[in-house]
Amino acid sequence: MLSEEGHDPAQQVTSHNSRGLLNDEYALKHFLSKVDVATFESEFLNSELLSRLSQEADCRIYPPPELMGELQDRMSQKTLLNAHKIPTSEWLPVNSEDASLAAAEQLGYPLVFKKRRFGYDGYGTFIVKNAADLKTFCDDHLPNTDGFIVEKWVPFKRELACIFARGLKGDVVHYPLVESLQKNSRCFWVKGPIKHAKFAAWAAGFKKLLAKSGYVGVIGVELFDTPKGLLVNELAPRVHNTGHYTQDAFLTSQFELHIKALLEQPLEIPKPNAPGFAMVNLLGADPKVDTVAWELEPGIRVHWYGKQETRPGRKMGHINALGGSPEAALKIALKALKRFTV
Amino acid sequence: MLSEEGHDPAQQVTSHNSRGLLNDEYALKHFLSKVDVATFESEFLNSELLSRLSQEADCRIYPPPELMGELQDRMSQKTLLNAHKIPTSEWLPVNSEDASLAAAEQLGYPLVFKKRRFGYDGYGTFIVKNAADLKTFCDDHLPNTDGFIVEKWVPFKRELACIFARGLKGDVVHYPLVESLQKNSRCFWVKGPIKHAKFAAWAAGFKKLLAKSGYVGVIGVELFDTPKGLLVNELAPRVHNTGHYTQDAFLTSQFELHIKALLEQPLEIPKPNAPGFAMVNLLGADPKVDTVAWELEPGIRVHWYGKQETRPGRKMGHINALGGSPEAALKIALKALKRFTV
Repeated sequence: MLSEEGHDPAQQVTSHNSRGLLNDEYALKHFLSKVDVATFESEFLNSELLSRLSQEADCRIYPPPELMGELQDRMSQKTLLNAHKIPTSEWLPVNSEDASLAAAEQLGYPLVFKKRRFGYDGYGTFIVKNAADLKTFCDDHLPNTDGFIVEKWVPFKRELACIFARGLKGDVVHYPLVESLQKNSRCFWVKGPIKHAKFAAWAAGFKKLLAKSGYVGVIGVELFDTPKGLLVNELAPRVHNTGHYTQDAFLTSQFELHIKALLEQPLEIPKPNAPGFAMVNLLGADPKVDTVAWELEPGIRVHWYGKQETRPGRKMGHINALGGSPEAALKIALKALKRFTV
Repeated sequence: MLSEEGHDPAQQVTSHNSRGLLNDEYALKHFLSKVDVATFESEFLNSELLSRLSQEADCRIYPPPELMGELQDRMSQKTLLNAHKIPTSEWLPVNSEDASLAAAEQLGYPLVFKKRRFGYDGYGTFIVKNAADLKTFCDDHLPNTDGFIVEKWVPFKRELACIFARGLKGDVVHYPLVESLQKNSRCFWVKGPIKHAKFAAWAAGFKKLLAKSGYVGVIGVELFDTPKGLLVNELAPRVHNTGHYTQDAFLTSQFELHIKALLEQPLEIPKPNAPGFAMVNLLGADPKVDTVAWELEPGIRVHWYGKQETRPGRKMGHINALGGSPEAALKIALKALKRFTV
């Protein structure tokens, strides 16, 4: 484990720790020289540096750093999706006020501006409802970034998500489709499994993208369920918050599946442990709540990350619940949430 | 984690490591002064030292060290069991040749001699079939120990086992009864759940023992299924090999349940994840087999301990399997075992 702080969650569960800046050439090279295969938890790394050091240190890195670089930029991510005929909302690149005005003309309000890189959980996302908003946005935000994309606002029925994994041998599997609810632009809960008439056809197309792009590892997909069908909102080239339910609802979690994928081992999605499952995030929860975790009723497991500091909305842990149906499991998880100060 | 080697399995999964001899007063006191609650993985510790340091370092230790001391000695363990009317095989203490001859007279051959302390997996156990064997045993082994107990050989149909847990608040729960098979005095496999007409009544009596003795934590019980009913073979005041199936067959494993018990949290045994489950030990397995672990078929999980050195019969890891019945799960686990060099 290479991480920047001495007390990161992942550091607490291994004795094989290195401390260093993730984009520091010396620290990275030293770390990579000690291991055969490496992966990453954040896609906001320097993909060119990683790619070069991977060769210099003779360490395989998955997902491929070049692909991570392509997906960390919303513009090249959308371009990749559309090139493989995977539907997204309508979008345009913008890096000037003129381009923004032209985009407003073409797409119509409301618009959603998203920073091309380094945005997450709503950071770097701006909803622009009219021309006045647009002027403010352009004055305040356009100058200081490496550019935005702008999307047409999508009226969706609900948000869905799915965890896929592609192995080094080319096999692709996925967990069930789930529904997720966002609260203040952060994932609040996930429940599943969810049925959707168009999902099988959509998944077949997405598997082709994974194969043609040479993706290796777990990838999280966020979808909008719209009257026009399933639109991809975002891809995350790593294990994903919407897949944390797999820790308790499946014999093989997304974390294990990710490791299997990059070690060239066959992938399998076993049957779920219950007819329904749910996950609720502990957002901005009190750092002392880990003591509450043990008091909860049967059928619930709390995963507490051990972060040193809480901030409003920060993901401090999550609750997994099993139940007779997705709704029953969610009810159990939300009831348990009341025991926490968030 | 306090341990004697720098590479013990438990040390690999935490960054909070101390290194020191487990019966060294200085190392123990330093370690206990840093934590609020401590537990142990081996019952072969110095109970008097632990008990005193627990007070001096203001650190609670569970199970209570005094009780650990009572259970680490087979003589006081059997005495405790019999005092609570929990049936065992007939037994006698012996520390001389005369006492051994008298025991042979009273119990009849074959006899099973067991070292009072520090025996495990068959080490310190001697089967004596006749008078000549007895003479050899007395010459070779009696002088160098702090004594033996001798048991009447019990003709049993099968060996059973069960994991109990008692919390600080006094609540007691248990996982299902399982069957275990020993091979060369070591646990080879476990399957469950097993039904036994006399188990409920037996468990009620055992719960009383746990309550009256003030036990706290998980305790493993090994039983003989005999024509005369269930006889306790051995108690282990800790998480136990026959309970490793709980890692995958239950939402709450014996390890979590143990921690819950000693943190004064309510205990619960959720329903199993499948109708049947099994565990097979990887005894003396090749240290390289961890790479095989990933290639196994669905429904199986391999737990590999990461011990640095293998020895014939040494527990290097285990396979857990789920199935439609105990027998089906065992079949899956034994099939997977063939992939390993043991």
